[in-house]
Amino acid sequence: MNDTIRSIATIMSDLDGILIYPHISMDGDALGSSAALCLALRSLGKKAYIMVNEPVPKNLDFLENGCTTTDDSVLEDVQLSLMLDCNGLNRIPGREAAWERGRLKGCIDHHATTSKDIRFDFQRIEPKSAATAEIIYRLIKDLGAEITLDIANCIFTAITTDTGNFQHVNTTSRSHEIVGHLYKVEGFNSKIISAMIYDRRSKGALKLEGYVLSKLHFYADGRLAVGQVSQAMLDEYGCTIDETDGIIQRIMSIDGVEGGCLLKEKGDTTRISLRGRSYINMSNVAAKFGGGGHVLASGCTINADLDTAEKTILPVLISELKH
Amino acid sequence: MNDTIRSIATIMSDLDGILIYPHISMDGDALGSSAALCLALRSLGKKAYIMVNEPVPKNLDFLENGCTTTDDSVLEDVQLSLMLDCNGLNRIPGREAAWERGRLKGCIDHHATTSKDIRFDFQRIEPKSAATAEIIYRLIKDLGAEITLDIANCIFTAITTDTGNFQHVNTTSRSHEIVGHLYKVEGFNSKIISAMIYDRRSKGALKLEGYVLSKLHFYADGRLAVGQVSQAMLDEYGCTIDETDGIIQRIMSIDGVEGGCLLKEKGDTTRISLRGRSYINMSNVAAKFGGGGHVLASGCTINADLDTAEKTILPVLISELKH
Repeated sequence: MNDTIRSIATIMSDLDGILIYPHISMDGDALGSSAALCLALRSLGKKAYIMVNEPVPKNLDFLENGCTTTDDSVLEDVQLSLMLDCNGLNRIPGREAAWERGRLKGCIDHHATTSKDIRFDFQRIEPKSAATAEIIYRLIKDLGAEITLDIANCIFTAITTDTGNFQHVNTTSRSHEIVGHLYKVEGFNSKIISAMIYDRRSKGALKLEGYVLSKLHFYADGRLAVGQVSQAMLDEYGCTIDETDGIIQRIMSIDGVEGGCLLKEKGDTTRISLRGRSYINMSNVAAKFGGGGHVLASGCTINADLDTAEKTILPVLISELKH
Repeated sequence: MNDTIRSIATIMSDLDGILIYPHISMDGDALGSSAALCLALRSLGKKAYIMVNEPVPKNLDFLENGCTTTDDSVLEDVQLSLMLDCNGLNRIPGREAAWERGRLKGCIDHHATTSKDIRFDFQRIEPKSAATAEIIYRLIKDLGAEITLDIANCIFTAITTDTGNFQHVNTTSRSHEIVGHLYKVEGFNSKIISAMIYDRRSKGALKLEGYVLSKLHFYADGRLAVGQVSQAMLDEYGCTIDETDGIIQRIMSIDGVEGGCLLKEKGDTTRISLRGRSYINMSNVAAKFGGGGHVLASGCTINADLDTAEKTILPVLISELKH
């Protein structure tokens, strides 16, 4: 079912006019993979764009490299629609009509769950690759394009963000092998890129994070930690709700915490991020409230204020701890 | 002046009774390198210990592996005193007498500054290696010992901590190459080790960090960020001053901050940690108050309370910003 990278390179070598589709809420791997491939295709004289319908996240702006477009008419003839870091129409909402324009449709991804809502002319899904960029790196080599500094920066960002800076369990020998090669590219400097990704937080976002952490609630002998972000806090520190994304990871750095829960006020509802360390099943907890996700990382929404939402989810969390 | 790793392996192959000396205030590389080599020497049937006179840091306890001793008389005949991750007697205070017992004296390090207060029978200093463990990994191979899971965990910890999880500018292609090999060791799991190193912070330490961040002061159009840790805060959150070590790194993640300063009350004095992002010279700032360190990371002590110390150092920081 999986095509080889070499066969995909052979197909793509004959094509021109390529639109690349990263998943919605693009992250370092989705955008980094897409931009690396787009730059490589352009270096081979091909017309290529990344088709998006949302702004590039601020901390990833350096990956853009003039590759994105919100208007698929930049290409008269779309010979290939290529989905990267996702594999279903549900992951490119609002871009379905543009997607259909591709004469050929392809997919390169590392997510194990496949949606099967598209018939691809070729696809390669490698669940054991830590990042889609690991596949793209090899594809670029097989296409015969050079790994330029801009491409190296894209690949590095994709791999380092998807592996949690080479700490997550998805990291492999090959992740390190590929990144090791990037250091051989003239001018490559991991520190500069890392500072772009991680060290451009707003003053308010860091102060808010600090405030939330200083007020954490603990339950079940410290095995559960719960934080709250109210609209009033967002207003006081001048932050958007998106800027609270990193707080849940900080909560999980506490000794003995098996489950972390961050409650975020959003209008009349409370958005909830859930993280587990090892044995708690957060997917079950989220499902109880109509949410979803992975066993160790999930989310849901409760139609109530922060304190009510905390009281509502707490017994479910405690019960799941005991399983 | 540098001996080859192969020649050091040849010398050590003929020796038994080896005491290894990591530097004072041992970190992941000092202890990780020492324990990796100690375990490898023991696997070859040799008597070897790590000589220390301070407790192993709590987050690095899993590196100890029964290797440390505070009593050099565990070895009747010390055929080799070997300094790791440092190269001067000033870096092993309180252990000088034991050190002198070694019939041979050796040194393996990656710090560029050499103290020259010892004549070593052999030494290897590789300033371009991100961690001393990168040298130790190759030495273990040349000694003909196997990279066991325990040794792999020591090497990984040393490299990942000394490179800031592969983000710092000292990271090289070889850092990634060596860590890539560790993944081939049966049972190796970076996530488990990473959680041991980073995810065992006390509740109080994280709450205190949060509180300090929520109260940061900014100066010079946000290019300077200053935090304060009082004894009262330490008492309230039940923390020791050592548990505040990570706060300065968090401060440096703020967009536009060129200089970070953390003031810590210690009795009647204020201990100060200084960090720079790119152009400020924090070594100069620290030197003005009798302290020292590197250009982008230094420290000093001012004999005054927190607010007075902040008022005292601020003009020096601002002046250094303008250079």
